[in-house]
Amino acid sequence: MPVVKHNASQPAKARHQVFSLLLDNRPLVDSILGRPGRKSTVSPEKLLDQTARLADIQRQLRAADAADILESLPLDKRLAFWRLIDNDKRGKILVEISPVIRHRLIADMNPGDILKAVRPLEVDEQACLAHYLPRDIVSRMLTALEPRQRAQARAMMNAERDSVGRYMDVELATVRPDVTLAVVQRYLRRRRTLPKNSDKLFVVDRKNQLVGELALTAILLNPPDKQVAEVMEANPAAFLPDDAAGDAAGAFERYDLVTAPVVDIKGKLVGRLGIEHMVDVIIAENDETQRRLGGIGPAADIYAPIRNTLRARWGWLAINLAAAFITSRVIGLFEGTLSVLVSLAALMPIVAGIGGAGGNQAMTMIVRGLALRQLAKGSVVFLLLRELGAAVINGLLWGGIMGLVTWFLYRNAGLGGVIMLAMLFNFILAALMGVMIPLAMARLGRNPAARSSVMIAAITDTGGYFIFLGLATVFLAHQA
Amino acid sequence: MPVVKHNASQPAKARHQVFSLLLDNRPLVDSILGRPGRKSTVSPEKLLDQTARLADIQRQLRAADAADILESLPLDKRLAFWRLIDNDKRGKILVEISPVIRHRLIADMNPGDILKAVRPLEVDEQACLAHYLPRDIVSRMLTALEPRQRAQARAMMNAERDSVGRYMDVELATVRPDVTLAVVQRYLRRRRTLPKNSDKLFVVDRKNQLVGELALTAILLNPPDKQVAEVMEANPAAFLPDDAAGDAAGAFERYDLVTAPVVDIKGKLVGRLGIEHMVDVIIAENDETQRRLGGIGPAADIYAPIRNTLRARWGWLAINLAAAFITSRVIGLFEGTLSVLVSLAALMPIVAGIGGAGGNQAMTMIVRGLALRQLAKGSVVFLLLRELGAAVINGLLWGGIMGLVTWFLYRNAGLGGVIMLAMLFNFILAALMGVMIPLAMARLGRNPAARSSVMIAAITDTGGYFIFLGLATVFLAHQA
Repeated sequence: MPVVKHNASQPAKARHQVFSLLLDNRPLVDSILGRPGRKSTVSPEKLLDQTARLADIQRQLRAADAADILESLPLDKRLAFWRLIDNDKRGKILVEISPVIRHRLIADMNPGDILKAVRPLEVDEQACLAHYLPRDIVSRMLTALEPRQRAQARAMMNAERDSVGRYMDVELATVRPDVTLAVVQRYLRRRRTLPKNSDKLFVVDRKNQLVGELALTAILLNPPDKQVAEVMEANPAAFLPDDAAGDAAGAFERYDLVTAPVVDIKGKLVGRLGIEHMVDVIIAENDETQRRLGGIGPAADIYAPIRNTLRARWGWLAINLAAAFITSRVIGLFEGTLSVLVSLAALMPIVAGIGGAGGNQAMTMIVRGLALRQLAKGSVVFLLLRELGAAVINGLLWGGIMGLVTWFLYRNAGLGGVIMLAMLFNFILAALMGVMIPLAMARLGRNPAARSSVMIAAITDTGGYFIFLGLATVFLAHQA
Repeated sequence: MPVVKHNASQPAKARHQVFSLLLDNRPLVDSILGRPGRKSTVSPEKLLDQTARLADIQRQLRAADAADILESLPLDKRLAFWRLIDNDKRGKILVEISPVIRHRLIADMNPGDILKAVRPLEVDEQACLAHYLPRDIVSRMLTALEPRQRAQARAMMNAERDSVGRYMDVELATVRPDVTLAVVQRYLRRRRTLPKNSDKLFVVDRKNQLVGELALTAILLNPPDKQVAEVMEANPAAFLPDDAAGDAAGAFERYDLVTAPVVDIKGKLVGRLGIEHMVDVIIAENDETQRRLGGIGPAADIYAPIRNTLRARWGWLAINLAAAFITSRVIGLFEGTLSVLVSLAALMPIVAGIGGAGGNQAMTMIVRGLALRQLAKGSVVFLLLRELGAAVINGLLWGGIMGLVTWFLYRNAGLGGVIMLAMLFNFILAALMGVMIPLAMARLGRNPAARSSVMIAAITDTGGYFIFLGLATVFLAHQA
């Protein structure tokens, strides 16, 4: 018996092969893409052989691995590899691949190929792709479905973004509560298939009302003459199509669910949520937070051409430039003071910078608390007081250190006192903003991580310069 | 038949009840914690009644929900509620709750209670808690296990942090390849239980070598006279105990796995990974990245007292202060230039700030690419060139705008030209650092998000001031 191989090694090998064939191999890429070849020393036979090897590799890849490799390839190599992938595999790959890239791959296909690629997919997968397809193809895709499936696909396409309705499967296996497990087993053997990752059947009455769930393990572990109603879970965790997908993912994590029923407000079974989609939701939510904190827009394919890169980033740069400009004008107010005591110019970024770091820490605490749903309403006062306390201690400590260093460096006790006071005040300002801004964002229904960081940075910067230069003007300007 | 309720509403109701009983109710908290009551107007009967209501609520809570509520409660209320929770439920709650809080709750229990709480847990759960328990309790806990289980627990406790060995379950259900499905069914009915979230049995030979997996659906959908070997998946995705848990989680996501076997290097079955632990890994990894980007340490309970808060944050503040100090010294080099042209002081934060924003964007792109495993080795040159291209365009664009604004504000074309050039150069520096620093961190095996952001900020700050003031010294100092 062969030693079982670690599963990560097979796709890694294929990935390596694809890369070594395509990277630094412009003649091959040109020939696959049918671009007018520049003078090339490579023989056509060799190109054909390499093309055949690539086609061989893709045939042995699972859709998810093919999607991974496509995502890792730079633009023209990605397109070249895509052209070689069999059409019946392309549908699954389009479902798996990230949305930005999905657009570009679909744009490379002709309508006939698209239809052939999507038709073998399940209804929920077709509905998921529909938003990325040309309108006339969507209507031809829908026409090909049975009326019941068409209605389901339409409902899913119209479901709110980030709602449970978008992520649910509609292929369901149901049983009645009043039959025996032996009957259920006969039914399953006739049925021959179950939806992917099924760990349970749904128990419904004649009106399709959900009355319970029957775990596959319950069928296997109990005597066949038991009734479904005796061994089912009669109080299952169920979701509504309008529930937020993020909340549902949280419930899956808390209760260690694998699948869960989706019911309408009357309790009728309409779909099924699977952990595989909930994992995607968790990953996508985290990715969005990280992306927004870094200031890049949603069209952020790592191999995007410069044009898209610039488009995904200009908004953030504009906001930052505007904030920096305001800061600059605040400093400009104090040119008089600066001209008499030029050392202030060297010291002022310290006050601004440390305030930014402190504000960011307070903000991260609150954003995490919100994300992990640990923030109780009555505790805002506690958090604010705790952050203010920490700010005072940090201000006295770090401000004190910098005050002493400044005194020593510039032989000027007043300057040391001013920088200490300014750091203390800016820490307090940063703590206030770090707590209040993300809470306000959350109250307004915005992603609290999104715009909070730039607002806090802007306020602690401007505030830091204003406080420091203001104090210096009051206490030190006469020293000139 | 009652309408099925959305599952999120039940814990939300309990949560609300606990909060309204405990918050702003110091007499109750004092009485539960047995603290010397200050003069209170509340009658003892009322306190007893409220205590009984809390005890009632906890009895109806699932462990995961109780853990959630405990995490959301400020310190003394958390302890008060913990004291009311039945001991046989506490073990599960300790497993579910976040590590920082786990420490404090365990510290509140006496050895006998801890042992009673952990004994009903499964071996892998006991091993997971062992790192948080006093040493003598761990040895008493291990003594109570059977020899085989004790060895398993020891192996798990010694497994590398963030390795598959830490997260695997050791309760396994196995079958032989040469029996029929009917035999498997009889075996399961005698067995009466299966590990949680089981979607498959593992098929092993006499030497416990893994030879395949038998999905529960395969048992149910195929005729009972088929042999296991005929319907099993003979080439399952398997993991090694030393594999990184994050890589395993990635494979679970890619292949939509629910459970997977863990084998030793000889192919012997040693454990089982479940999606519920992999979801925890994904959430914990993302949380760590976010925490590190915000500069707070691991002991970051949102309700931590000031002492812990300060401890979790001082390192980051020290690094930031050191960076700011270096920046300040760089500016100090140019005091001569600043004293002749004081408007430079107002303009210089613009150059530094926009460079920081640009560097952060480039870094976020790379960090995401690394996290999503989209970064191919041969593509670093492409990414670097793309980022440099974007930096040149952004530098000319935003630098041009600021140059014109400066010219207009200060009626000084030279100053406008200098700020434009400085912004261009700082954008280029930021792009270089934004690509190279996270890649270098990843190559060194560090979390690329962790220290990259502060390093990039330090370099773009210092670089921005140096470039701007340096150019001004060369081109403008004669204007005085």
